[in-house]
Amino acid sequence: MNKVEMTEAIILAKSARNLSWEAIAEGIGMGTVWVTSACLGMNSMPAEPAAKLCALLELSDEVKAALMQYPTKQWQWQVPQDPLIYRLYEIVGVYGETLKEVIQEKFGDGIMSAIDFTMDVAKEENPKGDRVVLTMNGKFLPYKAW
Amino acid sequence: MNKVEMTEAIILAKSARNLSWEAIAEGIGMGTVWVTSACLGMNSMPAEPAAKLCALLELSDEVKAALMQYPTKQWQWQVPQDPLIYRLYEIVGVYGETLKEVIQEKFGDGIMSAIDFTMDVAKEENPKGDRVVLTMNGKFLPYKAW
Amino acid sequence: MNKVEMTEAIILAKSARNLSWEAIAEGIGMGTVWVTSACLGMNSMPAEPAAKLCALLELSDEVKAALMQYPTKQWQWQVPQDPLIYRLYEIVGVYGETLKEVIQEKFGDGIMSAIDFTMDVAKEENPKGDRVVLTMNGKFLPYKAW
Amino acid sequence: MNKVEMTEAIILAKSARNLSWEAIAEGIGMGTVWVTSACLGMNSMPAEPAAKLCALLELSDEVKAALMQYPTKQWQWQVPQDPLIYRLYEIVGVYGETLKEVIQEKFGDGIMSAIDFTMDVAKEENPKGDRVVLTMNGKFLPYKAW
Amino acid sequence: MNKVEMTEAIILAKSARNLSWEAIAEGIGMGTVWVTSACLGMNSMPAEPAAKLCALLELSDEVKAALMQYPTKQWQWQVPQDPLIYRLYEIVGVYGETLKEVIQEKFGDGIMSAIDFTMDVAKEENPKGDRVVLTMNGKFLPYKAW
Amino acid sequence: MNKVEMTEAIILAKSARNLSWEAIAEGIGMGTVWVTSACLGMNSMPAEPAAKLCALLELSDEVKAALMQYPTKQWQWQVPQDPLIYRLYEIVGVYGETLKEVIQEKFGDGIMSAIDFTMDVAKEENPKGDRVVLTMNGKFLPYKAW
Amino acid sequence: MNKVEMTEAIILAKSARNLSWEAIAEGIGMGTVWVTSACLGMNSMPAEPAAKLCALLELSDEVKAALMQYPTKQWQWQVPQDPLIYRLYEIVGVYGETLKEVIQEKFGDGIMSAIDFTMDVAKEENPKGDRVVLTMNGKFLPYKAW
Amino acid sequence: MNKVEMTEAIILAKSARNLSWEAIAEGIGMGTVWVTSACLGMNSMPAEPAAKLCALLELSDEVKAALMQYPTKQWQWQVPQDPLIYRLYEIVGVYGETLKEVIQEKFGDGIMSAIDFTMDVAKEENPKGDRVVLTMNGKFLPYKAW
Amino acid sequence: MNKVEMTEAIILAKSARNLSWEAIAEGIGMGTVWVTSACLGMNSMPAEPAAKLCALLELSDEVKAALMQYPTKQWQWQVPQDPLIYRLYEIVGVYGETLKEVIQEKFGDGIMSAIDFTMDVAKEENPKGDRVVLTMNGKFLPYKAW
Amino acid sequence: MNKVEMTEAIILAKSARNLSWEAIAEGIGMGTVWVTSACLGMNSMPAEPAAKLCALLELSDEVKAALMQYPTKQWQWQVPQDPLIYRLYEIVGVYGETLKEVIQEKFGDGIMSAIDFTMDVAKEENPKGDRVVLTMNGKFLPYKAW
Repeated sequence: MNKVEMTEAIILAKSARNLSWEAIAEGIGMGTVWVTSACLGMNSMPAEPAAKLCALLELSDEVKAALMQYPTKQWQWQVPQDPLIYRLYEIVGVYGETLKEVIQEKFGDGIMSAIDFTMDVAKEENPKGDRVVLTMNGKFLPYKAW
Repeated sequence: MNKVEMTEAIILAKSARNLSWEAIAEGIGMGTVWVTSACLGMNSMPAEPAAKLCALLELSDEVKAALMQYPTKQWQWQVPQDPLIYRLYEIVGVYGETLKEVIQEKFGDGIMSAIDFTMDVAKEENPKGDRVVLTMNGKFLPYKAW
Repeated sequence: MNKVEMTEAIILAKSARNLSWEAIAEGIGMGTVWVTSACLGMNSMPAEPAAKLCALLELSDEVKAALMQYPTKQWQWQVPQDPLIYRLYEIVGVYGETLKEVIQEKFGDGIMSAIDFTMDVAKEENPKGDRVVLTMNGKFLPYKAW
Repeated sequence: MNKVEMTEAIILAKSARNLSWEAIAEGIGMGTVWVTSACLGMNSMPAEPAAKLCALLELSDEVKAALMQYPTKQWQWQVPQDPLIYRLYEIVGVYGETLKEVIQEKFGDGIMSAIDFTMDVAKEENPKGDRVVLTMNGKFLPYKAW
Repeated sequence: MNKVEMTEAIILAKSARNLSWEAIAEGIGMGTVWVTSACLGMNSMPAEPAAKLCALLELSDEVKAALMQYPTKQWQWQVPQDPLIYRLYEIVGVYGETLKEVIQEKFGDGIMSAIDFTMDVAKEENPKGDRVVLTMNGKFLPYKAW
Repeated sequence: MNKVEMTEAIILAKSARNLSWEAIAEGIGMGTVWVTSACLGMNSMPAEPAAKLCALLELSDEVKAALMQYPTKQWQWQVPQDPLIYRLYEIVGVYGETLKEVIQEKFGDGIMSAIDFTMDVAKEENPKGDRVVLTMNGKFLPYKAW
Repeated sequence: MNKVEMTEAIILAKSARNLSWEAIAEGIGMGTVWVTSACLGMNSMPAEPAAKLCALLELSDEVKAALMQYPTKQWQWQVPQDPLIYRLYEIVGVYGETLKEVIQEKFGDGIMSAIDFTMDVAKEENPKGDRVVLTMNGKFLPYKAW
Repeated sequence: MNKVEMTEAIILAKSARNLSWEAIAEGIGMGTVWVTSACLGMNSMPAEPAAKLCALLELSDEVKAALMQYPTKQWQWQVPQDPLIYRLYEIVGVYGETLKEVIQEKFGDGIMSAIDFTMDVAKEENPKGDRVVLTMNGKFLPYKAW
Repeated sequence: MNKVEMTEAIILAKSARNLSWEAIAEGIGMGTVWVTSACLGMNSMPAEPAAKLCALLELSDEVKAALMQYPTKQWQWQVPQDPLIYRLYEIVGVYGETLKEVIQEKFGDGIMSAIDFTMDVAKEENPKGDRVVLTMNGKFLPYKAW
Repeated sequence: MNKVEMTEAIILAKSARNLSWEAIAEGIGMGTVWVTSACLGMNSMPAEPAAKLCALLELSDEVKAALMQYPTKQWQWQVPQDPLIYRLYEIVGVYGETLKEVIQEKFGDGIMSAIDFTMDVAKEENPKGDRVVLTMNGKFLPYKAW
C-alpha cells in the first residue's frame, strides 16, 4: 500500500465515523497539524501513534506500515494556485526578506529549521470576523565556519 | 525618491546609529516585522509613524513621502534560493494541504487573509539550541455565495 | 464521488433536460456565474441550493455531497490558451497597473477581495455587434499596520 | 521621448498639481481607466485629448507626441505578484472556464474582445466595508466559418 | 463523444475512404483549412456542414454533435517542437515586430483579428522546388478610446 | 555601430523626413516587410540596397555597415504579450496541426522554409471594417532519407 | 497502429532476432542513423525500405503503414537530462555562437538545414580510449532578400 | 580585462585587419572552431597560442591574460532562438534518442565526452547548393561500476 | 520487463527478506550507492553482479536482463522538492562557484567527471548528533585544445 | 561596500600577490572551501578570520565589514550551465533518490543539513588521470513528531 492509497483509506474511515482531524489527533495524543500531515503522506509516523490511529479508525496493518514509511515529499507547483495556499506563498514573498532581517538580527547568521519544526493552528474569535493564528516553531541553525 | 533609494537611506542611517530594527520599531511604537517590511518597501507607512521614524533617524521629508507611498509588491523568484527564505517556502509546500484541511475544518470554506494580517518573531531560549517562533495572525475570509 | 465526476454528472443531466446554466441558476434562486462555477467544481455549494439543484436535475445525494465539499481550486496554466480566457488574462496584463492606480486612488492602499466577491455577465444588444458586460464586485480590504 | 519617460513626466506634473487620475480624466473629458492606461503607456491617445492633457498639466509637445505613439504592450510576469493584480489573475483562473460557459451560452461560439473594450471602476459604499465594482464592456466576436 | 474521439472517428473514416482533407472540404463546400481545423477539434462546425460531413463519411449523429460543440482551444507547448510548426513560430519571432510596424503604419493602432479570420494554403509550382503559399485574412480591429 | 544603434538612427531619420516604411521600401526597390525587418535588425541587407537606403535617408557608412552585418536573431519572449503579435502566436497554436495536415497532404513529408521565404502585408478595404491580408511564401523542403 | 506501438513492435522483433541497428540498416541498404530514427518514430520511411524492413523482421503491414506515416516530431524536454543527450545540448550551448561565426564566414548569412540533412556515427579506435565521431551534413540555405 | 571586453578587442582588431577566423587560426597553428570559441570566451587558451594570437593582432598582454583565464561557460537560453543555432538544438531533439541507441550499440553504456572533444566545419561544394559538414570527435567515457 | 517494474520487483523481494541495501551490496561484493542506483534504474549492472543479485533475492532472469539494460537517466524536476534531495541541490547552488575555483586551482581548466565517478555514504557518530559523510570521487577531465 | 565589490577587491589583491585560495586559507587557519565561499560572498566570516584575511591581503576595514555581513545566498540558474557545476547538478539528479534511500536506511527519516555542514576538495593522483575527491560532512537532522 502506497501513501496515496493510505490517505484515501484514512479519509474514507474518517468520513464514515464523522471524525475531525482534531478529534483523531486528540485520540492518539499528538498535534493536529502533524497528524494531518502524516495522514496526507507528508510525514512518517512512528509505530506507536500509527498503531493507535489504526485502532481508532479500525484500519489494517497495511495502513500502519504505510504511515511508518519515510515519504518522498513533493507538491505539484512552483507557484501554488489554491487561494488558501497561495496566500501563504504570498506571505513568504512579501515578508521573506523582512523575516531574514529580523531573525538574523535576533539570532545571528543562520536559518529556522523546517525539519526540527512544529506548527499549530488556532482560532481567535473576534466580533469583526474570526482570525486564524498560525504558530511555527523551528530550531535556529547557525551557519558553521570550518 | 523611490522605495529602493528610501531603503538604502534608512539602512545607512540605521547602521550609522547602530540601531536594530527592534529598537526602531519600539521607538515609533509599532511592531518589528511591520516596521521592517515598510522600511524594505513592502508596506506603506501612515503619516504619523513615518514622521516619527524620520525624526528618530534624522531623515528627510522625501524619505517620509517614500515611506507613505503605496508599494508595488514583488519578489525576484518563483522558488526562493536564500536558505532562510527557502525553508519558509518548503513549509508551504510540505504543510500547505495540511493547513487547508485544518483551517477549513475549524472555520469552513475560505482563506486566511494576507492583507488583514499581522506577524511576529520571537526567540525561545532552549539549551539544545534556541528556537524561532513565528506567529501569523490573519482574518478568516469565508467564500461568498450569491 | 469527486468534483470531476460531479461535474460530468451535472452536465449530462443538464444536456438531457436541455437546460441552460441560467435556467438552473434561476431554478435554485442563485446567480448564474456562481452556480456555474460551483457546478464546474470551483466553489462549494451550501446544503440548501445543493439540494434544490439535485432535485431540479434529479441527481443523487452523492452529487449533493460533492457540491458541498470544499474544493481545491486549480487551473492548468500559467498563461491560458483558449482565446476567450486568454483575452481576460490579457486585460489583467494591459490594465493591471492601471487598476492598481485607480483603485488605490479611490480607496487607499489595499486590494479588491477575490473571496468576498461576486460576478455577473450580461448581454448588451448593439446593432454594430452585441457586447459582453462583465461586472465584478469585491470587498475592498485595506492593508493593516500593526 | 519614449513612453517610460513620458509616464515619469506626467506623474511628476500630476503630483506637483496634486491632481487625481479622475480629475485629469474629467479635465479632458475621457474615462478614468482609459486615461490612466494611456498615461502609463498601455494605450495610444488621439491628438485632441493628448493636447488637452498636455495643456492641463503644462507639459511639452514631446509628451503629446509620446502619448500619441502606438505602444508595444508588455508586462513583466506570467503570474503577477503584486497582491492587487494577483487577485485579478486568480479570478481569471478560478472563473475562466465559468465565464466561457456563460458567455458562450448567451452569445454562441466566440470571445469578448479586449480591443473593442472599455472598463470602469466604481466605489460602492457599504457599512461592512466599501466594495470595488469593476465593469468590463467588450464587443462579442463570433468565430467565423469559411 | 468528446472532440478527441470525434477526431479519431473522422480520421478513421477518411483513411478507409482514402479521401483527402481537400476532397472532404470540397464535398461540403467549405474551405480546406477551416474544415481540417474543425475536424481536429479547434473550431465548432455549424449544423449544416456538420450534417453534410457526417453524410459524406457515413458517421453517426454523435460525431455531428461533437463537431457542433464549442471547443476549448489549447495546444501542448509554449515553444512548439515539430519542425513544420516551429518554423511558423520562428516567423512570428523574427517578423513579429516588423508586422506590427507595417500593419499599424497601414491601419493605425490596432490588431489583426484571429477570430474574424480565414486562412488558405496553396501550392506554387517552381522548378527550383515548389513553394507553400499561406494567406491569412483577418479583420483589422482598432483600439477604442473611451 | 551595432544593430540597436542602427535601428535608432534609421527611425530618427525616417521620422525627421516623415517617411513611411512603404515609401522607403519603394525608394530602394525592395519589399516593405523585408526592408522593415532589416531596419529592425532581423535580416542583413546586401550592399546595394543598403547604400540606396543610406543615400535616401542621408545616413553614414557606419549605418550601411551595420545593415550589412549578419544578425543574431532573437526575441524577448516564449509567449509574446503585445496583442498584435500574440494574435499571430495564437494562430500558430490554433492552426499549427491543421497546417501540418494540409501542407503535408499537398506536398509530402517536409516543412515550409522560414529562410527561403518572403512575406507581404496588404489592406483589403471592406465596408464592415478593413481587413489585413498576410501572404507568406516559403520553399517546401522535403525530408531526406539516406 | 501508432508510432509508439510501431517502435515497440520493432524493438521486440529486433531483440528476438538479436539484430543490431547497424545490421538492420545494412539489411535494407540505408544509413544506420536514419533507419534508427525512423524506427523510433522520428522520420517517415518510404514504401520500399519499409517493406524491406518488415520482411527482414517479419513484421505486419500495419508496421509498414506506421513507418510510412509522417511523424509529429517532439521530445520531452527543453533541457535534456540523460547524460549522453545532455552532452550534445551542452555542445550546442558552448559552441553555438562559434559555429554561427565559422559557418557564416565560410558561406554567408544563412543556416545549415536540419531537414535536407544526414548524419553518421563512427568509432575511432584509440589506445587512450576509443572516440565517437559524429558527422553531420546539411544543405546551406542562404537568407533571401525580396 | 574580462572575457567580454577581450572578445570586443579581438573582433575590433580582426575587422581592422580584415582577417577571417580561419586565417587567424592558421596564423597560430590551431583549429578554427577552437580558436573562435576561445576568442568568444568559451575556452581558455594556453600561453603559447595566446601569445601568438596577440602578436598577430597586435593586442596587449591584458588580452593574452584574459584568453588564458578559465571561463565560466554559459549561454542565454534554454531553447535557442537564432535560426542557425536552433537548427542544431532541433537536431539534438530529433536525433538524441537515436544517437543514444547507435552510440551505445557500438560502444556500450557510456557517453561521448564534451570536454575531451574537438569539432570541425567544412564546406562541401554541390551544384544543388553547398553543404555544411560538421564533424564532432569526442572520447567515449564508459560508466563505471564500483 | 522495464526498469520501473524491475525496481518494484527488487523492492518487494528486499522487503520480504528484510534486507538493507547495504546487505544486498555486501552480498554481491559491490558498493552500496552503486547497487542502490542500479536497482532504482539509474545505472546498468554487468552480467555477473546482476546474476548474483537475482540469486540472492530469488528473482527471475527478466529482472537480470532489466538490470543489464542501458538506462535513460531522467528525473522529474529542475528544482527538487524532497528536503533531503533539495539540500544537495542547495549545496550545488551555494558552493558551485567555490568548487569551480578550488578544483580549477588544483587541477587546471577542466571538470570532475560524473561518469567515471564513484560515491560513498558513511555515518560519523557524534554526541551532538550523528553526521552524514558523503564522498565523491570523479576523474578530472582537462579541456582539450586542438 | 557590498559583497560583489568585496569579492572584486579580494580577487584583485589575490592576483597581485599571486596567492592561491589554499594559501590564503592556510594563512588564516581555516578550510579552503569555506574561505573561498566567504570571499565569493556565499558565507559570512566572523571578525577574527576576517581581520586576518584583510591583514594578509592588505585590504581595508570596509572589506572586513563586508566579509562579516550576513549574505543573501542566490545563484543565477535553476539548471546550471557551466560544465563543472552542471556535472554536480547531474549527480544530484542521477543519485538523489539513491542517497535518500541509503541515508535514510542508515539514519532514519530526516535529512543531511546544508547549514551545519563542511566540505573539502582533495586531489588523488592516479596514473590514468588524477581524480577529484569531494567530501561533504553534514549533521543528520531527524524529522520531529509533535
